[in-house]
Amino acid sequence: MNYNEQTTIAAISTAMSNSGIGIVRMTGEDSVEIADRIYRGKKNKKLSGQMSHTIHYGYICDGDEVIDEVLVMLMRGPHTYTGEDTVEINCHGGVYVVKKVLETVIKYGARPAEPGEFTKRAFLNGKMDLSQAEAVGDLITAQNEYALKSSVSQLKGNVKEKISNIRQKIIYHTAFIETALDDPEHISVDGYGEKLKVTVDELIGDIRHLLDTCDDGRILKEGVNTVILGKPNAGKSSLMNAFLGEDRAIVTDIAGTTRDVLEEHINLQGISLNIMDTAGIRDTEDIVEKIGVDKAINYAKDADLILFVIDASSELDENDIEILKMIQGKQAIILLNKSDLDMIVTKKVIENKVNELQPVNSSETENHNPIIEVSAKEKSGIAEFEQILKDMFYDGKLTFNDEIYITNVRQKTALQEAYRSLQKVNESIEMGMPEDFYSIDLLDAYESLGSITGETIGEDLVNEIFSKFCMGK
Amino acid sequence: MNYNEQTTIAAISTAMSNSGIGIVRMTGEDSVEIADRIYRGKKNKKLSGQMSHTIHYGYICDGDEVIDEVLVMLMRGPHTYTGEDTVEINCHGGVYVVKKVLETVIKYGARPAEPGEFTKRAFLNGKMDLSQAEAVGDLITAQNEYALKSSVSQLKGNVKEKISNIRQKIIYHTAFIETALDDPEHISVDGYGEKLKVTVDELIGDIRHLLDTCDDGRILKEGVNTVILGKPNAGKSSLMNAFLGEDRAIVTDIAGTTRDVLEEHINLQGISLNIMDTAGIRDTEDIVEKIGVDKAINYAKDADLILFVIDASSELDENDIEILKMIQGKQAIILLNKSDLDMIVTKKVIENKVNELQPVNSSETENHNPIIEVSAKEKSGIAEFEQILKDMFYDGKLTFNDEIYITNVRQKTALQEAYRSLQKVNESIEMGMPEDFYSIDLLDAYESLGSITGETIGEDLVNEIFSKFCMGK
Repeated sequence: MNYNEQTTIAAISTAMSNSGIGIVRMTGEDSVEIADRIYRGKKNKKLSGQMSHTIHYGYICDGDEVIDEVLVMLMRGPHTYTGEDTVEINCHGGVYVVKKVLETVIKYGARPAEPGEFTKRAFLNGKMDLSQAEAVGDLITAQNEYALKSSVSQLKGNVKEKISNIRQKIIYHTAFIETALDDPEHISVDGYGEKLKVTVDELIGDIRHLLDTCDDGRILKEGVNTVILGKPNAGKSSLMNAFLGEDRAIVTDIAGTTRDVLEEHINLQGISLNIMDTAGIRDTEDIVEKIGVDKAINYAKDADLILFVIDASSELDENDIEILKMIQGKQAIILLNKSDLDMIVTKKVIENKVNELQPVNSSETENHNPIIEVSAKEKSGIAEFEQILKDMFYDGKLTFNDEIYITNVRQKTALQEAYRSLQKVNESIEMGMPEDFYSIDLLDAYESLGSITGETIGEDLVNEIFSKFCMGK
Repeated sequence: MNYNEQTTIAAISTAMSNSGIGIVRMTGEDSVEIADRIYRGKKNKKLSGQMSHTIHYGYICDGDEVIDEVLVMLMRGPHTYTGEDTVEINCHGGVYVVKKVLETVIKYGARPAEPGEFTKRAFLNGKMDLSQAEAVGDLITAQNEYALKSSVSQLKGNVKEKISNIRQKIIYHTAFIETALDDPEHISVDGYGEKLKVTVDELIGDIRHLLDTCDDGRILKEGVNTVILGKPNAGKSSLMNAFLGEDRAIVTDIAGTTRDVLEEHINLQGISLNIMDTAGIRDTEDIVEKIGVDKAINYAKDADLILFVIDASSELDENDIEILKMIQGKQAIILLNKSDLDMIVTKKVIENKVNELQPVNSSETENHNPIIEVSAKEKSGIAEFEQILKDMFYDGKLTFNDEIYITNVRQKTALQEAYRSLQKVNESIEMGMPEDFYSIDLLDAYESLGSITGETIGEDLVNEIFSKFCMGK
């Protein structure tokens, strides 16, 4: 990889609204020198004479003009984020003053960094592989506990290590084949195909396992796409509010969410639910029943989870039955709300109704959706709901000590390519093709996997990946 | 002052939106100990064994669970912002992860800081006086270069020093009077009044001078309240856009600005203009002329500056004449726009018209408003406009080496009180009142001035002042 932009770069690394502290970050070989041009410490202290990883109080000045009172963090490469000399100026966190400090740094020799350029340098300088770099981006945008854990795990190098192991095995066999073909007199490849197949099967299994995590990975990262269904007055809103009760949940507003569907985000015990409210059900009272079910069917098709809220204090109606039919075989939780009133609809009633709805010859009576009695009014049943939610999605799975979750579409695509290439190797073995056929596909798999860690990836793609980062990272 | 909250406090000091770096800040005697409970460095490094003002790479963990990869800044009191041991955790700047780090710090022993509590501790621990603490708040909200300079100057202690000098002189004389009255046999107060009056006059002069800066101070801090006037199609909007041209100006949106008046904020060469657009002039085409002028008169009454945009390519009409009359004797700049076309309205035309409008017996022909030819289309005349703006407001005044600008209403009120008390001293001297009358008013002035630096101020007021700070500062 060609990397000839060895200049010193600078950017504001904190968010751009008024706050206590703002950071202007600078990295590159001239960082310390540039900082010295604008830093005024006590007793004419020079940063260039100071030890690495030390903090210095003083002022940032443009000539005689004092810009701000600051703390300067001095960190020398290679033990820095980028691997290069790095100076971080902690100034007061007003937007104007932080910009002014950045302007001063640039005036005295740094150039403005591009989005993600600090992390890009870390990658290019070998401080992290591409999967770790991508984890930095994911970590910053993490919206819940599991997404955070997953990205921290990836940042620590778990994906990198796993992929490197697979690649090592592949390159070992590729090398063997090439050597054998070059030197057929001394190295025999008789029966090698069967031996190779054992390894390839194992590797296919590993990659399959990683691919299996992708869907969970998406849920981890983006949350559980949830549709909430129920008649008007079944208590959907008050139930939502009960879930949101002060100490447990946070409503977040993810930037860029399309606004044409009413969507709310809540965190329950570290699980993000993206709740699509089938607003139509409530808003158009007249033709409500039909439209409601139509919309519901539409939304529910792609949902990870359906929450079906029933008003347990009144009889089931046709509409409820329609929804009950619809959610069979899907991930759904049935919430019998208003359990504080006389319950006309009980668990038993639902279970009987569901059995009635089963085709007579169905053996599939296993797949019953959980039914929970709740009361939005008395805030009861909520803990049980959360427990079921955890069981359905992650319980037990998420220790993150060894488990890796692939949350990144680019990485998933590369895994799929490697998977197909390895399948081709097996096909070639089965068809008794010559050994050099194996090594072509093995090398393809090697290449695809290398794009995850960034070892076999073009500069354009690198630039594209880092351009999605936020400024100052 | 009673200060018995010697606990360790923590808060997020950076702004709460996703960014490269976030800071969780902790101060108090247990800071380092708490940090050690959650910090995992290389080779089991403990922060408590490290030197002050050093930076440490590692992880923040809650037991076995890794929360984030961080840099920890270790700073021991008294050489810290608050004067107490301080630990700053630089983590990834995602909102979720920063909150999680704060939660962890709190779980392991810190308590959440109140807004401004770090600066309050700095004040209570004698690291800064109240005028400096207030400057911190002003610095963070500074919207332009002069506001920034003014608050940096105040932060460096210029106000503190000035006020302390005045107070010292007051207390010297008070002490003399008290001693003399206690010991009349040895110390004579004959003719002392006249001697005192010299000092009091001098102090009144100093305070008067400070009070005179208040209006400029407000402009520094909040910007120049500007009203832009002109007929529809005179080119107000395109002129605004020309001023805003890419490299010179920044449009800002000050939080809390009332929305019922259309207000734009632009920075020109470090001067903030808060431009109130007399939107009515444009929006109601029919009854436009009369309403326009009415509104204009209303806005212009309190404005620091009027920008009168004339379409120089067409004849002056009645409305223009009305406005010309109205702006006589006010701070106004007349902009002859469309100077790229054939100019029907020239400087000469305006000057003649203005002379016509002067009452015959007026000797006041000095106060002519500057007239500039501009072209929004060709972006000409803008540099001249900016120069005139600087001349009108700050040019030459703002070196900030010695000059102090009072930008704070609380400080202004205290100065006014001190001013009145000192005037009373002079009155007492003139009326030949007994000496103990002097000392009562001198002490009042001393007290009022002390509230600026915070030496004579109640806990309630201190709490109120710091509660206006942002979180984490």
